[in-house]
Amino acid sequence: MILLDGKKVSSLIKDEIAREVVKMKGSGLKVPHLAAMIAGSDGASETYVAHKGKACDQVGFKSTLVRLEEDVPEKVLFDKIDEINENTDIDGLIVQLPLPSHISEKKVVERIRVEKDVDGFHPVNVGRLLIDQPCYISATPNGIIELIKRYNIETSGKHCVILGRSNIVGKPMAMLMARKGNPGNATVTICHSRTGDIEAVCRQADILIVAMGKAEFVTAGMVKENAVVIDVGITRVESDKTKSGWKLLGDVKYDEVAPKCSYITPVPGGVGPMTIVSLLNNTLKAAKKEIYR
Amino acid sequence: MILLDGKKVSSLIKDEIAREVVKMKGSGLKVPHLAAMIAGSDGASETYVAHKGKACDQVGFKSTLVRLEEDVPEKVLFDKIDEINENTDIDGLIVQLPLPSHISEKKVVERIRVEKDVDGFHPVNVGRLLIDQPCYISATPNGIIELIKRYNIETSGKHCVILGRSNIVGKPMAMLMARKGNPGNATVTICHSRTGDIEAVCRQADILIVAMGKAEFVTAGMVKENAVVIDVGITRVESDKTKSGWKLLGDVKYDEVAPKCSYITPVPGGVGPMTIVSLLNNTLKAAKKEIYR
Repeated sequence: MILLDGKKVSSLIKDEIAREVVKMKGSGLKVPHLAAMIAGSDGASETYVAHKGKACDQVGFKSTLVRLEEDVPEKVLFDKIDEINENTDIDGLIVQLPLPSHISEKKVVERIRVEKDVDGFHPVNVGRLLIDQPCYISATPNGIIELIKRYNIETSGKHCVILGRSNIVGKPMAMLMARKGNPGNATVTICHSRTGDIEAVCRQADILIVAMGKAEFVTAGMVKENAVVIDVGITRVESDKTKSGWKLLGDVKYDEVAPKCSYITPVPGGVGPMTIVSLLNNTLKAAKKEIYR
Repeated sequence: MILLDGKKVSSLIKDEIAREVVKMKGSGLKVPHLAAMIAGSDGASETYVAHKGKACDQVGFKSTLVRLEEDVPEKVLFDKIDEINENTDIDGLIVQLPLPSHISEKKVVERIRVEKDVDGFHPVNVGRLLIDQPCYISATPNGIIELIKRYNIETSGKHCVILGRSNIVGKPMAMLMARKGNPGNATVTICHSRTGDIEAVCRQADILIVAMGKAEFVTAGMVKENAVVIDVGITRVESDKTKSGWKLLGDVKYDEVAPKCSYITPVPGGVGPMTIVSLLNNTLKAAKKEIYR
């Protein structure tokens, strides 16, 4: 069993990006610049945004945090987005979700210029992903694809089963695994809460990608010998065995599943760290205008 | 075995649309107006465009055909698109594909205003389909969904196997069958040329949607008893049994598969006629501004 070590790989990729930034500076180019917007003060959102800012620092990107009040009028937030859209020094803009309930996420996502949408949530980027055109791929699917690439995992002709049909993981992941290319060319099955015998479907998987948000849902009996298992889930549960009083669990019962796998991601330290480097990678692409113009 | 009679259903829907147009006229509204653009004189394209124009006539839509030379400069074609984009009398615009090789299909598709993209090929419409937001769904997937609805075929919890991963059938179809809703909520498997044991996967299908473009690819041995089979394929082959000297074949070996099915589409007269009513439906929605504004 080989560990898909997202922590190690993401650190490797950060080094690559940092070297690229040094090179850009050397050529007299401006460094990539990511702006993040946060409205209100949700605890988890604060943590995510702080992590993203820190990652920018690590690779030498410039970053800007735009902080708005919980009760910010939609119009003010839109104006701020427009301002960043027009700001030629800023390459990428992310608006941390969830937003306060009086603000339309859909409108916000569509307001960000597609060229700066490094989260890959704008319909144009999602649509281009489906029709296999250059686009910003959202962080989690992008991170998983990168892990698969770095470990040279064969996907062509394999049966990839995806648990979960979310807009940001399950559905884009299915499109990426099914498309022509490498990684890709897999036979893909999408399962979800309405799937009948989900255990039986899982047992067919050469590659099992789990994004249900249900702690330890996948047990050893659901996994084929030598399968590749990629666990996107992360749930915080109480624990009397840690100093903090809690621990993080994935959607896979790691201890019993891991021995059967050819490859498996740990939680934490698997897919999680890969998502932030996806964002950095998209921001780098934006700065270099690799996708749009 | 029940025939999924696309010819009958499409005629029914045309009547419904025609009544709606009469109502719109009665309320003093303008009638829906579809513009079609064709460059060059490909035989099949001519036929398709003529069919679409005739369908518009049948339901009382206005239609405009813009005919351009095979060697039309890209700029001239773009200007024509821009002109129609600005024309408030025209609700929908389709550009018949394939285009002459010197013209970028991608640029053409992205040039059409998303509000008038009744073919549903613009990345915004494709992206919205993936994230389950109101959009113009392209003709074939839309037609299949409509057939499933009209025959009240249960899809929730069923295993839907899709053969083919094209941008205009396989991939959007997978998203529609997997999404929350009715039709929808199916476990979906996408197969393609790289799929290993495609026969075995097919035999698992409660609903089998075939869009390979390989005449009579699906045989009786690949179909589960009581499956629903939807055949998107249409191939013209020589025949000494018809006056014309040719006949049309689907991707399914109809004669041997049909007896095993609960429902099956014939070819021709199944999915085909449904695609044109999808286009009419999208144009109606455009005229009523149901999707955008």
